[in-house]
Amino acid sequence: MAKRLPRHFNCPTEFTLAVLGGKWKTVILCYLKERPCRYAELRKLLPALSDKMLTERLADLVRTGLVTRKGSHEGGRTYALTARGRSLEKLLHELYGWGMDHAATFNVQVEEPLKALGLLPEKTKLRR
Amino acid sequence: MAKRLPRHFNCPTEFTLAVLGGKWKTVILCYLKERPCRYAELRKLLPALSDKMLTERLADLVRTGLVTRKGSHEGGRTYALTARGRSLEKLLHELYGWGMDHAATFNVQVEEPLKALGLLPEKTKLRR
Repeated sequence: MAKRLPRHFNCPTEFTLAVLGGKWKTVILCYLKERPCRYAELRKLLPALSDKMLTERLADLVRTGLVTRKGSHEGGRTYALTARGRSLEKLLHELYGWGMDHAATFNVQVEEPLKALGLLPEKTKLRR
Repeated sequence: MAKRLPRHFNCPTEFTLAVLGGKWKTVILCYLKERPCRYAELRKLLPALSDKMLTERLADLVRTGLVTRKGSHEGGRTYALTARGRSLEKLLHELYGWGMDHAATFNVQVEEPLKALGLLPEKTKLRR
């Protein structure tokens, strides 16, 4: 997964999508924008991911400089956005908010895993 | 490519990403948010895509209800965002703008294909 970023892109949007690095990393970033999360919390938020996949994606995000990791033993590991990761906040907020606002018009049901964990996204609440 | 959307998502962000449908469709939407484009213009904006790939992705976007197509013969086909597609404008603007604003900090060079076609994104200009 941890491909090196190309040095050149034909469009700014392509570059942004390459930094986000795919669905699961984008979803992880959306959760971390609310507050730092322990590994076990992310585990619960992403039941579709195996331990190996989650660990790999977190390592990628650390390598890209979007996420920082504190603590070394498994139970104590905490992940948080870096300053670079926080620069994506507005975009991440749009990704989450658009999904919330438009799911019904696609006849689609979306869960709110942040809510279930007591991590209600304040900005999204305000916006609605 | 044209997979049916699942009826249920674990997170609003996952749903939004599924609607955007991957890198190339997102890039196409970013161009169309500036103004309707003829097929030949999109062709020039996306040199990395084959005719077949571009045609498939446009058909997917029409099927998802994000894009509408006018005209039937190849030279006259014009694509534009629908009302549903326009609901993504703010998000698409963020995707493009973040890439423009942060490429240098990743030591990455990004082109501005819209500019080359005289399609300078006004909102992005204002923001910078």
